[in-house]
Amino acid sequence: MTDDIEMSLQPAVMKAAAIEKPGGPEVLKLVDRPVPEPAADEVLIKVTGAGINRPDVLQRMGFYPPPPGASDLPGLEVAGEIVAVGKNAGDWRVGEQVCALIPGGGYAQYACAHFGACLPVPEGLTLFEAAGLPETMFTVWANVFDDAALKSGETLLVHGGTSGIGTTAIGLAKAFGARAIATAGTYEKCTATRQLGADAVFNYTEDNWENEIIALGGADVVLDMTGGDFVNRNLECLNPGGRHVSIAFLRGATAEINILNIMRKRLKLSGSTLRGRDAAEKTHLANAIRTHVWPLIVAGKVGVAIDQIYPLADVAKAHIRMESGAHIGKIILDAS
Amino acid sequence: MTDDIEMSLQPAVMKAAAIEKPGGPEVLKLVDRPVPEPAADEVLIKVTGAGINRPDVLQRMGFYPPPPGASDLPGLEVAGEIVAVGKNAGDWRVGEQVCALIPGGGYAQYACAHFGACLPVPEGLTLFEAAGLPETMFTVWANVFDDAALKSGETLLVHGGTSGIGTTAIGLAKAFGARAIATAGTYEKCTATRQLGADAVFNYTEDNWENEIIALGGADVVLDMTGGDFVNRNLECLNPGGRHVSIAFLRGATAEINILNIMRKRLKLSGSTLRGRDAAEKTHLANAIRTHVWPLIVAGKVGVAIDQIYPLADVAKAHIRMESGAHIGKIILDAS
Repeated sequence: MTDDIEMSLQPAVMKAAAIEKPGGPEVLKLVDRPVPEPAADEVLIKVTGAGINRPDVLQRMGFYPPPPGASDLPGLEVAGEIVAVGKNAGDWRVGEQVCALIPGGGYAQYACAHFGACLPVPEGLTLFEAAGLPETMFTVWANVFDDAALKSGETLLVHGGTSGIGTTAIGLAKAFGARAIATAGTYEKCTATRQLGADAVFNYTEDNWENEIIALGGADVVLDMTGGDFVNRNLECLNPGGRHVSIAFLRGATAEINILNIMRKRLKLSGSTLRGRDAAEKTHLANAIRTHVWPLIVAGKVGVAIDQIYPLADVAKAHIRMESGAHIGKIILDAS
Repeated sequence: MTDDIEMSLQPAVMKAAAIEKPGGPEVLKLVDRPVPEPAADEVLIKVTGAGINRPDVLQRMGFYPPPPGASDLPGLEVAGEIVAVGKNAGDWRVGEQVCALIPGGGYAQYACAHFGACLPVPEGLTLFEAAGLPETMFTVWANVFDDAALKSGETLLVHGGTSGIGTTAIGLAKAFGARAIATAGTYEKCTATRQLGADAVFNYTEDNWENEIIALGGADVVLDMTGGDFVNRNLECLNPGGRHVSIAFLRGATAEINILNIMRKRLKLSGSTLRGRDAAEKTHLANAIRTHVWPLIVAGKVGVAIDQIYPLADVAKAHIRMESGAHIGKIILDAS
């Protein structure tokens, strides 16, 4: 370690879940790895909880390589205690409890995070709950509120209402005075989505949801993880001035769109990956989230839905659960 | 006429070119019509020149009905002298020479225009040249500079470099310090487009233009009138942060797009029709154009390319020319 960091004494070796080779859940193996060293603008976190996300599954399959400089271990969000602070890592101090958005390396007992992508653990939340916040909160804030500028009184549509993103999007939309319309793939999930606060929920495997949504007054913002054939159906039920934001494409990476719809209603389509945003942007988002969203969490107005917590050693089971699609809310690893 | 307008003495009847029924150029007939009365927020213009635009052809075919309240006569832009001013029509005075963006009624000896959609005839331009300004200037300004925010040092791509929109887009992009890349459908038009100031021009019927444009450093903004198969090729050659604006779809109203491209490069797609914008928005655009573009026209830095001027009685010939695609620059009707 360098002289440039404030730190407490840590072991040299940690347990981590690594991807042995591209493949199914069984390629995730518990391994020993050196505890990473934080760069000058990073903190080192002793991880209690690590969130599981769909991109981790893609990375495991070999389709989503980590960006240059990032850990080869999967894991995009953690919560725990700061045990070392780089020289230029803002005001963070050893001993503080934080959750953080990271470019990789979360499936481990220790992980480095850029200081700007850390947030304090909201009062009243466990570290397991906090571990499920960064990926969904950054994603929903960046796309729905920052890029698409959802306003009070407008209507949000999100498919997959029981997913981590779905539950967060519904919770935040409602907390900011917008209507939330969601879809889900089973009637059980539709019921769960209604209980999460959605104003209207449709079963996307059966309902002609775009016409139902038009009948309800249409949507102003769509947060889309589906892609494929749903994109043009989303455009159909968007109101004039509507915004369509793509963050995944579980139904297909290509979409056939109606250009006249875009012109006539002056729709805006955009998309992003969270991982592709640079540190400055993540810092900007973290500050906005801390200001606008954290007080809502502390006040109990926005919750984090936890599906299940698995020990780090059971990471393969956690991935099987994610791929089953049966989960409602976040799947978390216990690295403590 | 009401007491609410300042006016000079005008005849009660005028010549106009009307659409007898949906069909080919031959359905355009010279007719007698009452001279229209301006509303409180309008001026009446004695028309010298009227611009011909592609939407006029669609309207003639029955595909683009005039918006509610607009004249049933075709014609979206005129230049001439103000002969009557409504009570709430700003500072315009009888006798001033203006060009105006109108929702219809331009193919006539007299036309009403919302006061906010009028601009003075730039010093040094004839009324025929000025008649060719509004539709292209409003369209290019609204889409390329207002919505897509093309900046100095960035690169614009426009297909159909010799069209009215193409020539204007190239001229304005260059005047504001951007690079202009264009395509055209014949080598003659490629040559003409280069002479109009484009930095690079490709023959879209032969060249693998998207790869050529990538090799040149890519595009930051695409002003797209093509739609169809060109949309995804446009997305291919857009740089990270690129903006794609649809204003027509000459190659097809549907497009198959790659969502991963949009997410990975954080592209923004939008579109609009000029006719669908309300009076307040047109006023806002007119003010911006008067401030930012008119001085460039007066200084000779941005020109208006006139293809041919036809007498009002020869309107069918003018449409035949438009549909031939052989024109380079604007086709204008002489209503004087």
